[in-house]
Amino acid sequence: MTTARVRRTATTLADGRDLLYFDDTEPYVSGGRTRRLDDPRPLADRYADVPGEDGAPRPFQGPEMRLDPLTGEWVPMASHRMNRTFLPAADSCPLCPARPGAEYSDGEVPDTDYDVVVFENRFPALMQVPGTGLDDGWDVDGSDLWRARPAAGRCEVVCFSADHTSSLGAVGPRRMRTIIEAWADRTRELSALPGIEQVFCFENRGKEIGVTLPHPHGQVYAFPFVAPRTQAMQRQAAAHQAATGRNLHRDILDGERKAGVRVVLESEHWTAYVPAASRWPVEVHLAPHRDVLDLPGLSDAERDDLAVVYLDLLGRLDRFFVGPDGSAIPLPYISGWHQAVVGEGRELGRLHLQVFSVLRAPGKLKYLAGVESGVGAWISDTTPERIAARLQEAAR
Amino acid sequence: MTTARVRRTATTLADGRDLLYFDDTEPYVSGGRTRRLDDPRPLADRYADVPGEDGAPRPFQGPEMRLDPLTGEWVPMASHRMNRTFLPAADSCPLCPARPGAEYSDGEVPDTDYDVVVFENRFPALMQVPGTGLDDGWDVDGSDLWRARPAAGRCEVVCFSADHTSSLGAVGPRRMRTIIEAWADRTRELSALPGIEQVFCFENRGKEIGVTLPHPHGQVYAFPFVAPRTQAMQRQAAAHQAATGRNLHRDILDGERKAGVRVVLESEHWTAYVPAASRWPVEVHLAPHRDVLDLPGLSDAERDDLAVVYLDLLGRLDRFFVGPDGSAIPLPYISGWHQAVVGEGRELGRLHLQVFSVLRAPGKLKYLAGVESGVGAWISDTTPERIAARLQEAAR
Repeated sequence: MTTARVRRTATTLADGRDLLYFDDTEPYVSGGRTRRLDDPRPLADRYADVPGEDGAPRPFQGPEMRLDPLTGEWVPMASHRMNRTFLPAADSCPLCPARPGAEYSDGEVPDTDYDVVVFENRFPALMQVPGTGLDDGWDVDGSDLWRARPAAGRCEVVCFSADHTSSLGAVGPRRMRTIIEAWADRTRELSALPGIEQVFCFENRGKEIGVTLPHPHGQVYAFPFVAPRTQAMQRQAAAHQAATGRNLHRDILDGERKAGVRVVLESEHWTAYVPAASRWPVEVHLAPHRDVLDLPGLSDAERDDLAVVYLDLLGRLDRFFVGPDGSAIPLPYISGWHQAVVGEGRELGRLHLQVFSVLRAPGKLKYLAGVESGVGAWISDTTPERIAARLQEAAR
Repeated sequence: MTTARVRRTATTLADGRDLLYFDDTEPYVSGGRTRRLDDPRPLADRYADVPGEDGAPRPFQGPEMRLDPLTGEWVPMASHRMNRTFLPAADSCPLCPARPGAEYSDGEVPDTDYDVVVFENRFPALMQVPGTGLDDGWDVDGSDLWRARPAAGRCEVVCFSADHTSSLGAVGPRRMRTIIEAWADRTRELSALPGIEQVFCFENRGKEIGVTLPHPHGQVYAFPFVAPRTQAMQRQAAAHQAATGRNLHRDILDGERKAGVRVVLESEHWTAYVPAASRWPVEVHLAPHRDVLDLPGLSDAERDDLAVVYLDLLGRLDRFFVGPDGSAIPLPYISGWHQAVVGEGRELGRLHLQVFSVLRAPGKLKYLAGVESGVGAWISDTTPERIAARLQEAAR
C-alpha cells in the first residue's frame, strides 16, 4: 500500500465551530472543489447570552467541573447541554452530507459529500469559552473542600464515511488510513491547545451502549485533566519504572508476545492480544512494536500497517458471536486510543488501542451495577484465554 | 419505635451453604417453629470435581483473580460460573419461600415463610474453597507481571421480604429495621473471615440495570481486597488527614450541612445530601451524625432512626421522575453501604450510604461508554443542586 495522500481542508461553521475535511479520493470531493464550503445555516452564536431561571438573559458560562473530594476526580457538569434546542428532523441525520441542490443542510456538514470529516460537537461536555481563563478556579459554597474550574476542553465528532449505512469495519484500508491521519491530526492540534492534558480518540458502536446515531462516527475528547483510568496507569507505570527502570507498557507487550497464548494477530508493526487480566466479556489491545507515545508519533509504514490490522481486528469482533442460524452478530463495542499524556509523566505512556464489549453472549449484556459502579470492582465472567481463543478462530 | 427483637436462626443448605433467617414477627415464622429447617434438595457438593475440557473429572478450583498491571486492580474471574446448570422453572422464583405441602422447594429457601433471609450465593463470583490457602498466589504464564490468587471472598443474597411483588421501599420501618440488623450481622461475621478486607452491602433494583429477579433482594460481597473506588477514597482520606488532622468524610458531612443547599433531609441521627461533586443523574448520600465506622457500630437509636429515614429516601427516589400522566416512575437504582475497610486504614473510613441511578429522564438511561468505561472520566448531565431541589420537592 502506498502512503495515503490526504487533502485537509479547514472551514468554519455558522456558529464558529471548526470543521475539517480529510479527503483521500481525487478530485477531493470536499477540499478540491470550488463550491462554497462555509455553512449558510442561521445558527445562533454559541457563546450568546442564555436565558436564566427568571427568563432574563445571563452571560453564557460554558461547562464547569468540580473536584470530587471522595475520589480526587474532576467531574465535568454538562448542565448547559440540558436545554438542547437542536433536534434533527426524524428523516435527517446530522452526520450525513448536505443534500445536493438544497440551499443548506440541516445537518452539520455543509458539503454534499466527504471522505472523512471532523467538527466540534455542537453540545460539548468540554468547551473552551473565549475570555474564560483556564486558571479561573473557585470554591463551591465558599468551602475549599469543593474546588471548581471551567471544563475547558474540547469535544469533536469524526465521521468515518459519508455512507449513513456503513460502518468503520467496512470502509476499506484506504479510508481507514485517512481516518488514522485524521486521528493523528486531531491529537497533534488538540494537544497544543492551552490546558489540555490528554487527548482520547474513541468510537462507541451499537445501540446497546446508547449510541443513538447509527451513522458511522467516533469522537475525540481533549481533557483539561488526566482521566482517572489514565491516572491509574500512570501510577502503575511510574512504580514499574522505579522498580525496574523499564516501561510498563513495553514489558506487557513483550510479555504477551512471549507467552503467546493470548496473542490474536501479529503484523510487521503491530500485535493484538487479550491482556492477561482483561475484565470485559470481550477485550483486545493493539500495540505497536516500536515505542511510540501517541498517534502523531507513528511512521507512515506503521500507519499503513495499522489500517489493515485495525480492519482485521474489527472483522474478528463481528464474528465473535454467532447466532443460532450461524450468522455473525455485529458486536456493540467501545474502542479507544490510550495515548501518552501531554504534560508531566508523558514518557511513562505508550500508545495502545483498547477495544471491548459489554456483550456477554448474543442478547446478554454485562451491566455495571453495584459492584462495578458502587465500589469500582470488576468481575469478569470469562477468562482472557477463552476470549483470545475465540478471536484467533474468528480470523477470516 | 422500640428496639427491634430479631430472632436469628442459622441453618445449612444441602450443598453446605449457610442460610440465616432473621425473623421479627412472633411466632417467628422460620426460626420459632419446630419444622425441619434443613434443605432436603438433592444438591451436588459444591466442591465436587468438575468435568475438564477433555471430559475427565478435575478437582474443583474456585474462582481466581488476577492483578491488572495497567491499573493495579484485582480482577476476579468467575469463569467457574459459566456452566451454570441451575435454571429455575419459569413459574418459580428461587428467592420465594417453599410452597406449603411441597416435599421440597426448588427455590433456595427451605421454609414456607420468612421475614428476612440471607444465604450464600449458589454461583458466587468470590468463594472460599476449603483447602485453598489464602496466601496461595502464582504467576500467570510464569511472568511476575501477572500475579494471580484465589478470589477467596464471599457473596451472599439478602431477601428483603417473602412477598415476591413487594419492594424494599414498601416493607415498612419494622422490617427495614430487621434488614439493618441483618446487614450489620453479615458485616460483622464476614469481616471476621480470614483474608476479607472489605464488606459491601448493596441493592441493585430495576431491569434497566440488569436485575433479572424481581423478588426484592440485595447482596453482600466480602472482598479479599480493597475495591478500587474504596482505595481512591482511602487515598483521599489519608491526604486530608495528613493535611488537616481531620476525617475527610466528617468534614464533607459538616460542609454539606453548613452549605445546606444540597441537604435533602435531616433526622436526629442522620443527614441525606447530594454531594457537591456528584456524577450520576440521580445521586444522594446518607451519613450518620456520630462518627461510625460501619453498620455494626451503629447504636440501637441510630438503627431505629435509619429504618425511617431510609424508607423516606427511597420514597423520594420513586417520586423523582413523573410520567406524562403525573404518575410516579419507580426509579431503577443502585444503593451501597460504604464502610470502613477491615484492615489497614480502617480509621480513615466513615459509614455512609450512596444511592444513585442511571436514569437521566423517564425512558432515558445514562450509558457508560467510551469516556466512562475507556478512561474512567465521568460527565454529569445535571448539577447536584438540581438533583437536591427535586429530592427536596419529592417529600411525601
